[in-house]
Amino acid sequence: MKQIKCIGILTSGGDASGMNAAIRAVTRSAICNGYTVKGIYRGYEGLIRNEIKELTTQDVSSIIQRGGTILKTARSKDFMTPEGRKVAYDNMVAAGIDALVVIGGNGSLSGAQIFANEFDVPCIGLPGTIDNDLYGTDSTIGYDTALNTIVDCVDKIRDTATSHDRIFFVEVMGRDAGFLAQNSAIASGAEAAIIPEDQTDVDQLEKFIGRGFRKSKNSSIVIVSEAPKNGGAMYYAERVKNEYPQYDVRVTILGHLQRGGSPSAYDRILASRLGVGAIEALKEDQRNVMIGIRNDKIVYVPFTEAIKKDKPLDKSLIEVLDELSI
Amino acid sequence: MKQIKCIGILTSGGDASGMNAAIRAVTRSAICNGYTVKGIYRGYEGLIRNEIKELTTQDVSSIIQRGGTILKTARSKDFMTPEGRKVAYDNMVAAGIDALVVIGGNGSLSGAQIFANEFDVPCIGLPGTIDNDLYGTDSTIGYDTALNTIVDCVDKIRDTATSHDRIFFVEVMGRDAGFLAQNSAIASGAEAAIIPEDQTDVDQLEKFIGRGFRKSKNSSIVIVSEAPKNGGAMYYAERVKNEYPQYDVRVTILGHLQRGGSPSAYDRILASRLGVGAIEALKEDQRNVMIGIRNDKIVYVPFTEAIKKDKPLDKSLIEVLDELSI
Amino acid sequence: MKQIKCIGILTSGGDASGMNAAIRAVTRSAICNGYTVKGIYRGYEGLIRNEIKELTTQDVSSIIQRGGTILKTARSKDFMTPEGRKVAYDNMVAAGIDALVVIGGNGSLSGAQIFANEFDVPCIGLPGTIDNDLYGTDSTIGYDTALNTIVDCVDKIRDTATSHDRIFFVEVMGRDAGFLAQNSAIASGAEAAIIPEDQTDVDQLEKFIGRGFRKSKNSSIVIVSEAPKNGGAMYYAERVKNEYPQYDVRVTILGHLQRGGSPSAYDRILASRLGVGAIEALKEDQRNVMIGIRNDKIVYVPFTEAIKKDKPLDKSLIEVLDELSI
Amino acid sequence: MKQIKCIGILTSGGDASGMNAAIRAVTRSAICNGYTVKGIYRGYEGLIRNEIKELTTQDVSSIIQRGGTILKTARSKDFMTPEGRKVAYDNMVAAGIDALVVIGGNGSLSGAQIFANEFDVPCIGLPGTIDNDLYGTDSTIGYDTALNTIVDCVDKIRDTATSHDRIFFVEVMGRDAGFLAQNSAIASGAEAAIIPEDQTDVDQLEKFIGRGFRKSKNSSIVIVSEAPKNGGAMYYAERVKNEYPQYDVRVTILGHLQRGGSPSAYDRILASRLGVGAIEALKEDQRNVMIGIRNDKIVYVPFTEAIKKDKPLDKSLIEVLDELSI
Repeated sequence: MKQIKCIGILTSGGDASGMNAAIRAVTRSAICNGYTVKGIYRGYEGLIRNEIKELTTQDVSSIIQRGGTILKTARSKDFMTPEGRKVAYDNMVAAGIDALVVIGGNGSLSGAQIFANEFDVPCIGLPGTIDNDLYGTDSTIGYDTALNTIVDCVDKIRDTATSHDRIFFVEVMGRDAGFLAQNSAIASGAEAAIIPEDQTDVDQLEKFIGRGFRKSKNSSIVIVSEAPKNGGAMYYAERVKNEYPQYDVRVTILGHLQRGGSPSAYDRILASRLGVGAIEALKEDQRNVMIGIRNDKIVYVPFTEAIKKDKPLDKSLIEVLDELSI
Repeated sequence: MKQIKCIGILTSGGDASGMNAAIRAVTRSAICNGYTVKGIYRGYEGLIRNEIKELTTQDVSSIIQRGGTILKTARSKDFMTPEGRKVAYDNMVAAGIDALVVIGGNGSLSGAQIFANEFDVPCIGLPGTIDNDLYGTDSTIGYDTALNTIVDCVDKIRDTATSHDRIFFVEVMGRDAGFLAQNSAIASGAEAAIIPEDQTDVDQLEKFIGRGFRKSKNSSIVIVSEAPKNGGAMYYAERVKNEYPQYDVRVTILGHLQRGGSPSAYDRILASRLGVGAIEALKEDQRNVMIGIRNDKIVYVPFTEAIKKDKPLDKSLIEVLDELSI
Repeated sequence: MKQIKCIGILTSGGDASGMNAAIRAVTRSAICNGYTVKGIYRGYEGLIRNEIKELTTQDVSSIIQRGGTILKTARSKDFMTPEGRKVAYDNMVAAGIDALVVIGGNGSLSGAQIFANEFDVPCIGLPGTIDNDLYGTDSTIGYDTALNTIVDCVDKIRDTATSHDRIFFVEVMGRDAGFLAQNSAIASGAEAAIIPEDQTDVDQLEKFIGRGFRKSKNSSIVIVSEAPKNGGAMYYAERVKNEYPQYDVRVTILGHLQRGGSPSAYDRILASRLGVGAIEALKEDQRNVMIGIRNDKIVYVPFTEAIKKDKPLDKSLIEVLDELSI
Repeated sequence: MKQIKCIGILTSGGDASGMNAAIRAVTRSAICNGYTVKGIYRGYEGLIRNEIKELTTQDVSSIIQRGGTILKTARSKDFMTPEGRKVAYDNMVAAGIDALVVIGGNGSLSGAQIFANEFDVPCIGLPGTIDNDLYGTDSTIGYDTALNTIVDCVDKIRDTATSHDRIFFVEVMGRDAGFLAQNSAIASGAEAAIIPEDQTDVDQLEKFIGRGFRKSKNSSIVIVSEAPKNGGAMYYAERVKNEYPQYDVRVTILGHLQRGGSPSAYDRILASRLGVGAIEALKEDQRNVMIGIRNDKIVYVPFTEAIKKDKPLDKSLIEVLDELSI
């Protein structure tokens, strides 16, 4: 196996708070261990466009507390073609990069896997997504921050809901996974959460209406996963309005403010540990693994597992919300 | 003039952060000065429905830091009719209330004015609205908090905009006034603000596009006032998308999270001073005035002025944003 | 075994953010499962003074987001005597309480253990302390919030340290455990952490000085555990000042602001799950156990283990900080 | 008068949040108006050491939201000597700088005044200090942010004070001025404030004790100005402890965390407007004036006034606190 001297690093897919902390950790840990580090801008697209620049320990100074990613991120159509990946590979070789560290979500790690297999490039993945939907790691970089942001917003909305005796449907991110919705509902004391993992569409609404929230409470918060299949918060709000015209129903779609912001302590520590873990993995000749955290220990998760397996939502969280929203 | 012994207090219209600090200040200052205080729940509606309860100094303990209003708020259709107001008056008299302190925005103070004239009730208004659109006061209770909340959200959105090289149109509240939009744009370093006070629809868009932001910047934030006449952020985003399909354009409508949350230091102090001012005004036999702050001094603004006159936006703020968003 | 009908709940020891979320969870879960709940005020002291009041689901409404504890807390000298505990027991019986849920740290759970053994009372403990020093649970209620508060403060101090080229020694809580210090140092990008678990006094200082931080950096942050044995941040600051008079050295002792504040999402969820777990444990006839979380699952930890065993700090965290503070 | 082509800018004295927003505003407004801008690092010390670098619009990008100052700051002993100032002047001339914008507090503006008079250099001052103690401006850059930081901290401390029935003495910054102490006391619902402007030492303590806070309240917060003459919070805490040993008294000295952090919306807008005002003033051939804000309008305050005159604390604020802390 060729000795690794220079490590390339990129962020890909949707930005997540803590990506900068991960970039810092990978860069500094790599330099500490004798490697050179090159930053690739705008994800795989930047590899194709040859946007590559060496990173020093100074370049990653004072970024641990910043949201977004200093390496920028993008979704690359060209990288989905063999021709695009060939250009990417050639640029990588020309830049002297021997191994890649990719920070991103499911799609980004899938890209890394294909690339690694096609060109025999050692690739290490770091789970960077607010959705927390990667198998094999207890948490992903950005998830805890997004959760806190949502809870902070719902606390504010609760002030208005209570003051006006209203029902608010608040739509949150999470793609096909209900982690953000279910946990933000518990944390914000919401009356219900509507998540992809829980039953059918109609059941969910009935469950909510059937809870009898009207008897004891004058206001309610329902957290709704973004859900392309049924239209999210708007859809449920409309149905409740139609069936219960006496209620004062409002919708807030939190949108992109869920991604950014200064990372929480947890995300900074997680990103720091995973970044150090990535370099450790390369030193141990690991490749094509995602660095994860399980039971507070660093683990190596093969790409195939991280990407293919579904990460289940702990069903007991549904019961917790049910009991506590009485 | 009849001696005032018991003061009724209510919050009305949209909730604003700092209303609780105002309730606390009115209540404690009143009690300090020998008055009894009665809280009226759900605004004028509660006066009609006779939802009235005495308030002690303890009842308003530990509320200065809380968003929303412990007295709740509502919009009352019945109070817009002479019959409704008659019921309200009768309940007020029955409860022994001699004077009213009304915390709310334009509509709420208009209601107070009509009520005061019809039944010769001493009414004092406190400006409570996030929109800052009341004439005669430099600021309204809730405005500074909402401004900080918006800026905090835009800071987060900026992380994503920069990471992805996107243009974000962020819609903020403010009704017909551009205070929140213009000032949050300055404070968040936005590239442009589209406000009701500034020119025509088409001009505003041209101005934004014509700024040449594309040459020197890869991402932009445009703050847009909620504006029923043209559709707000969605409208502008669509137009830019149509004319410049190469851009990655997104929209976030901040919505109701702008109202609540723990009040800023400024809003707590403002509410405290205005609340003390309301009792001072009653002691001085003032009536039908709004307590305002001008040049850091408490002032009495006749309802007619506060409600009828338009509060102008300082045009120099438009120039400040223009110069600083280069 | 006597059937449990009424559950008493108290908070004890230093307050921790999330205690209210735990009180809410225990109360609602208990009521959901058919129990009556009685709140005991001011910890064991309140049991002795008979400060007991029934709690309804409404009583714990809108407290999930609040710091401190609505049940108040205290340290009780009388409860350390057999006579005091006898009075407490008699009051408990007189109030019809069949089982106790105690939320607190090491000392509080020790008290519960002694009480449980003396009077054969079913006691369940919930780990409530910002120090995270209870064995058998990955985290304690309040720890994540305190960590975020510290990191937020250090972010602010960093602004001043960088602007003035200064060295700041920041003292944080944590009693004999370095969790808060070590992890806040990683999360805030501090240059060093001085913790009880790591080596001797002199070594620590040499390590810090020997890092050569002066060569590459103009400012530094050192996080220091509160440490009765050597005097904490003041002690280290003095030594550095004496040996390196050219440096501009400052000290900030964060103090009690580390305890309160609205709990983080993590602490609210943790407290909610542990609270539900406490009732589940009572239903399963568990007693004299602390409810903990391990690998994201609820576990029962016998009091003897939770109290007696030392919870070790993961040594890899020391290496992570060492690598990343270059 | 010599035509100004190049403007030098520096920050001096204690850092204040919003200084970066001011640097950005001065730089961009200057460039907008055809000037070249040079940044001087570490205040007057950097002028003496010749640490000068041109600033472009890009250099001040993404700094509006950051605490501290990218130009760094320092206190310079050499600048207090005629020799030091001569070196500074020579460097300034060599760098082609025709005018200076100085952002800082009292001492910094005094330095600017002396320098301006000695070498006939056009100097413009911007009030940058958390203490708000400059005459002629309603607010100074950094004051609103520091006030919010203090209130946020006291909100947290209140959680602990209430939970434990304690009296906390919280010491805040402000030098010889009580703005931060008095206003943070009002905003945080504190029971008392001890400020330099209010009466004598003994009176203040008696006033606090005499308020009878013990009758109706179990916990208290007293905000104390840092006050070299009597020792601040520690001094008062000791006296209360001695005279009333039954109370559980604690002290927290907030320290340097009061300076940094992301600036509030108000401070960002203020700094932006003052920065634009500085360039406007230079265009109007103003010199030796501080740009201030009065009644929401930009004003020019001669250095002599800004520095020499005492800015009075509105005494009505003392009454407001007295009435509301019952």
